[in-house]
Amino acid sequence: MEIPQINHIREAHERIKPFVHRTPVLTSSYLNSLLGCEIFFKCENFQKVGAFKFRGATNALLSATAEELRNGVATHSSGNHAQALALAAKMLGTKATIIMPNNSPSVKKNAVAGYGADIILCEPTLESRESTLREFVNQSGALFVHPYDNFNIICGQGTAALELIDEVGTLDAVIAPVGGGGLLSGTSIAVKSLLPKAKVYGAEPSGADDAARSMREGSRITQIVPNTVADGLRTTLSELTFSIIRQNVDDIITIDDDKIISSMRLIWERMKIIVEPSSATALAAVIAEKDRLAGSRIGIILSGGNVDLDNLPW
Amino acid sequence: MEIPQINHIREAHERIKPFVHRTPVLTSSYLNSLLGCEIFFKCENFQKVGAFKFRGATNALLSATAEELRNGVATHSSGNHAQALALAAKMLGTKATIIMPNNSPSVKKNAVAGYGADIILCEPTLESRESTLREFVNQSGALFVHPYDNFNIICGQGTAALELIDEVGTLDAVIAPVGGGGLLSGTSIAVKSLLPKAKVYGAEPSGADDAARSMREGSRITQIVPNTVADGLRTTLSELTFSIIRQNVDDIITIDDDKIISSMRLIWERMKIIVEPSSATALAAVIAEKDRLAGSRIGIILSGGNVDLDNLPW
Repeated sequence: MEIPQINHIREAHERIKPFVHRTPVLTSSYLNSLLGCEIFFKCENFQKVGAFKFRGATNALLSATAEELRNGVATHSSGNHAQALALAAKMLGTKATIIMPNNSPSVKKNAVAGYGADIILCEPTLESRESTLREFVNQSGALFVHPYDNFNIICGQGTAALELIDEVGTLDAVIAPVGGGGLLSGTSIAVKSLLPKAKVYGAEPSGADDAARSMREGSRITQIVPNTVADGLRTTLSELTFSIIRQNVDDIITIDDDKIISSMRLIWERMKIIVEPSSATALAAVIAEKDRLAGSRIGIILSGGNVDLDNLPW
Repeated sequence: MEIPQINHIREAHERIKPFVHRTPVLTSSYLNSLLGCEIFFKCENFQKVGAFKFRGATNALLSATAEELRNGVATHSSGNHAQALALAAKMLGTKATIIMPNNSPSVKKNAVAGYGADIILCEPTLESRESTLREFVNQSGALFVHPYDNFNIICGQGTAALELIDEVGTLDAVIAPVGGGGLLSGTSIAVKSLLPKAKVYGAEPSGADDAARSMREGSRITQIVPNTVADGLRTTLSELTFSIIRQNVDDIITIDDDKIISSMRLIWERMKIIVEPSSATALAAVIAEKDRLAGSRIGIILSGGNVDLDNLPW
């Protein structure tokens, strides 16, 4: 199990730079004055496919050999990784096949199909996803690109923090949401290498708090029944992401759904940008830890902006 | 009736620069490829108070003498101009009084009160607004700052186009929404001076098409019963804005509400930014005139981002 280092993230950045957006860093004087700190929002909601996931997917495909890509790529996901892999594959002239639960909203299926990927529907259980994927990969020889338990994916996700620090300089803390841990892993490696004194926090929904519990108990908890509005954060850590997070992350801050929703609304209303609940979890963590963070310069990774405008959580 | 010139807009820009945001210019490769042109969105939804109106209000107050400001400022508005004048007055240490219809949503009254302005409620008719304002101004000696029929307001609104052209250089066309005509007037003066070959278009809801009809008939139409989702565009031109628009604007493009709403949603979904219906009217105009504008470099002023998230139009 090879652990990525900062030089791998730098290499990933050089590799993907021509293909991804260098997203803007925004600030809000209202939020700064409300919270008594200075927050720098790295806007991955403006990334291609509307989420940071495009960084990892692009890096994974650019790092693969022609031989590995010969039979296309595949993954199971109904979320942003599915769209990211579909678009990265299209961009690089490779075939992508996405295993999606048969109850996925049609807007998500259409988005994936719109990028030219094939879709194979499965039952909406992890077992069915994994067995359907395994079967497809065995038959087709496609390269499986896991959404986070993957060295190159983690390196790609770390490039958002790399750009953030390059743009704003020193920070006292960086906060990223944590689901499967790919983003938080990459972020933590970048931050601890470039700003050794900075704290790194994960922001996690209380209704999917496997990372917080795993950190507390010192061993990886995988048996959770996620129940949270933050649909991007329902997954659990892998061995790889847990080992990185355990090493680098100072604390996991858990947030109830009502606080996630009110933070999401605060960002929409005050910053006039669209973020999904997963992104808002990081701002909610600042609000929850207002006293601890007072006076700090804080970086936040706004992970994505894909929401169903017909089903907003308020 | 003095008509503003480009030097007045330049002076306004120098005057307000320390107080307003220089808003970003965004592009969308998706929309460019969809529409076969290159669009530069000047994001006044990111301006203070969430709308371009803060430019004009700030310029009006900075242009007034201490004597004129001695008894405070006043206006009648339930929209973005109310908030803009309230915040500009607060920033410059002057008292603002806003005449608002008694059926204004409490979110709007709270926003104005939150900037420290006094509110006087009136009946929800133009007559009541105007007579209540007149009475207040007579009693108090406050300076009336009209939302658009005002030289300094128009100069302030023109600074958005000034910044846009400064940033992106030459353009084939610039489109701004038109309600009372302050933004379109200022925009048209800036564009026709700096880019004499560029076309200037107004985008107007079919349900409040007084500008289009006034242009067609060659005289100002004021008797309309506005019926449109674009609540910022329900007002009619003044003599001053009509004379500027008649001189400078190449065409007014009228748009039905369903097209305004679908364009608004397109911006939210694809650009991940929050704009109000008035802003979306300008993109809807590009879509309506797709053939005429094919291959062009187009500037759009996204006028604001103040929406009621509990009452979205879809």
